[in-house]
Amino acid sequence: MDINANDPALKSWLPVPADSDFPIQNLPFGIFKTAERGPRPGVAIGEYIVDIRELVSTGLLDVTGIDLGVFQQDTLNAFAALGRPAQRAVRERVSQLLQHDNQELHAQRVWISRCIVEMRHATMCMPVEVGDYTDFYSSIEHATNVGIMFRGVENALMPNWKHIPIGYHGRASSIVISGTDIHRPKGQTVPVDGEPPVFGPSKQMDFELEVAFIVGKGNALGHPIPVGQAEEHLFGLVLFNDWSARDIQKWEYVPLGPFLGKNFGSSISAWVVLMDALEPYRVDCPVQDPAPQAYLGSQGPANFDIQLEVFLQPADSEPATISRSNFKYMYWNMRQQLAHHTINGCNMRPGDMCASGTISGHTPDSYGSMLELAWKGTKPLHMPDGSERKFIQDGDRLTIKGFCNNGQVRIGFGEVTGLVLPAL
Amino acid sequence: MDINANDPALKSWLPVPADSDFPIQNLPFGIFKTAERGPRPGVAIGEYIVDIRELVSTGLLDVTGIDLGVFQQDTLNAFAALGRPAQRAVRERVSQLLQHDNQELHAQRVWISRCIVEMRHATMCMPVEVGDYTDFYSSIEHATNVGIMFRGVENALMPNWKHIPIGYHGRASSIVISGTDIHRPKGQTVPVDGEPPVFGPSKQMDFELEVAFIVGKGNALGHPIPVGQAEEHLFGLVLFNDWSARDIQKWEYVPLGPFLGKNFGSSISAWVVLMDALEPYRVDCPVQDPAPQAYLGSQGPANFDIQLEVFLQPADSEPATISRSNFKYMYWNMRQQLAHHTINGCNMRPGDMCASGTISGHTPDSYGSMLELAWKGTKPLHMPDGSERKFIQDGDRLTIKGFCNNGQVRIGFGEVTGLVLPAL
Repeated sequence: MDINANDPALKSWLPVPADSDFPIQNLPFGIFKTAERGPRPGVAIGEYIVDIRELVSTGLLDVTGIDLGVFQQDTLNAFAALGRPAQRAVRERVSQLLQHDNQELHAQRVWISRCIVEMRHATMCMPVEVGDYTDFYSSIEHATNVGIMFRGVENALMPNWKHIPIGYHGRASSIVISGTDIHRPKGQTVPVDGEPPVFGPSKQMDFELEVAFIVGKGNALGHPIPVGQAEEHLFGLVLFNDWSARDIQKWEYVPLGPFLGKNFGSSISAWVVLMDALEPYRVDCPVQDPAPQAYLGSQGPANFDIQLEVFLQPADSEPATISRSNFKYMYWNMRQQLAHHTINGCNMRPGDMCASGTISGHTPDSYGSMLELAWKGTKPLHMPDGSERKFIQDGDRLTIKGFCNNGQVRIGFGEVTGLVLPAL
Repeated sequence: MDINANDPALKSWLPVPADSDFPIQNLPFGIFKTAERGPRPGVAIGEYIVDIRELVSTGLLDVTGIDLGVFQQDTLNAFAALGRPAQRAVRERVSQLLQHDNQELHAQRVWISRCIVEMRHATMCMPVEVGDYTDFYSSIEHATNVGIMFRGVENALMPNWKHIPIGYHGRASSIVISGTDIHRPKGQTVPVDGEPPVFGPSKQMDFELEVAFIVGKGNALGHPIPVGQAEEHLFGLVLFNDWSARDIQKWEYVPLGPFLGKNFGSSISAWVVLMDALEPYRVDCPVQDPAPQAYLGSQGPANFDIQLEVFLQPADSEPATISRSNFKYMYWNMRQQLAHHTINGCNMRPGDMCASGTISGHTPDSYGSMLELAWKGTKPLHMPDGSERKFIQDGDRLTIKGFCNNGQVRIGFGEVTGLVLPAL
């Protein structure tokens, strides 16, 4: 095909509101279901979903030359496994079929009723089955903030931080789709340093503003992915809220890292924005000093300008914006994260998820966690309803939104939202 | 059924060598394949495997009253999900069919040729698809040894260690079946403290002697498994070698824990010894002081007397026994590990794996890693071929064996073995 699915001039025959996250230049993939349709792949456009399984049955996707059997799955793992060229071909073909002057689908009323679903009738499901989940720690502002709070300004960054995209393994089973309620976790904490631990609900529940990439094509055990080929293994991005219990985390994390302070839940946005859709928003990375080792060397713009907003909504109140940040601040980029993760031979599988770590910007209103925004509880946030927040309270709803806007086209991620319920 | 599958007096009509790991009192489950048969569930007895899928087709398992469709899977996850009573029923029925005086299968020559496979014709596969893998750190001897080496005798155990069964998330994708070769990993290390990191093959490759439990019935997100019910969620045990690269681990692990120093490979034994088979080998646990919090309270014998042996075989040489340890030394038992893991609502899924952490005993010849056996390189091991070992060298084969013997019956785990190949 000879089309540019990112062309700002493209219009669809389906109506797309001016402020939609899902113009024809986006076309993110997800898994949806309705009262009549079981879980299946779909593509978002405006306030509609293209039912890809039905679209396959019309024969209109045959021109892509890929194995369309992947869309018979109820996750996107098999599609992710096909790799970037196949994902590009499908996205471009769907774009073509939705363009205002294309009649192949538009002129077939029966096909439209089968293939186009109103988003308001759909429930979103997990887009992939996550085999393994890794959480990086790649924002220098976040790592520095946390370091200052716990070790002072002089020792804020650990000696390894500028040499290694630090990361750790998280829990895959508790990654849930946006809209899933989260119970406040119970656990051991030490309210007074040096005293014995106590047991009860966490008193320092927090969010972490993150973006996660989903792995497309994997690699075999023992065979690293070179940094120069890493982007060919990226399927797409989602918004990611790494719910955290700071008091549990603080007591447990030495020496083997966070565990129960993190694994009670992580929430993701439903629509996977494919890497190709993000090409117009590519930007340069921060200068890395010292220069990374050769296996982490990355040339040219490898970051993405994704504007991020965090909203906290107390019960019976309006949501308040508590942070505005940007994915472009990341010190370590996704190529480097993937090259590092596999340099020892670790194998990645399609659908694996790697989150960025908390994304904090330079200014206090751009920090990506309550821990930083309220600076360890010393600077409580003031809510519009008159209440204060040091951490998240029961009944609070936390929502993250993200979008790209280069002045020509705006594409978005939708949102990831979750309500915090009392401990059981 | 009214049988005791652990009865020491039981004999099978199939021949079982006197020193076999797999007498009729064991009957571990695994996934095997042959030149003619695709991957499928089997039960080990002596030098034979009972093909459970074929046994289902004879109708002889119908009396168990369980959904036999679980054996149409090519992993044991669905069988694990059924829970302890179902696993008990199947094991007891298989035991009954194999007893010397039972003719139901034995008298049917055609059925025997379908259902009984010689082990030497089979290749073993991963017994389960591992959704998530957690590695605990529950041997007080190991934690103390490592603490002494890195922080001195006074600060050996961290303040949290006696309050929490410390654990962290590991990588599920790189868990491999016994017999899989492992390439020495490359990565960043700091050979001289304070100097910049260098890149290259690890120079401190190690093993860790562990036993892992496989989760049976899972729990829903948000709903902990009480310690008193934890054993109902255990499917069975395997031997576990948590390959480690100490130099990579040392540089990367602060503050978020081990990552590339561990995730290049973990090897497991092929046969899952069901919890019921281990009942005769239950023993008391070490006294815990201070007493654990109520949610970790565990009454009665919750440890298992499993004798463990580690063999290191240099290329072109004989294997040497380098350690003899025992699973009974664990300070934190499996009930406590599972109750702790889920106390915050973290959900476990059938087939999830939780390893014990390195199992070291009281004496230097019972330590479960090269790091401890050669005490950080200061006390090299002497091999029968005249060579020395501070860590594992290319061409070395590392094998762990395990068995129980209460003086009446001996049952075993087979082995987990792996050959270390040079870095790619």
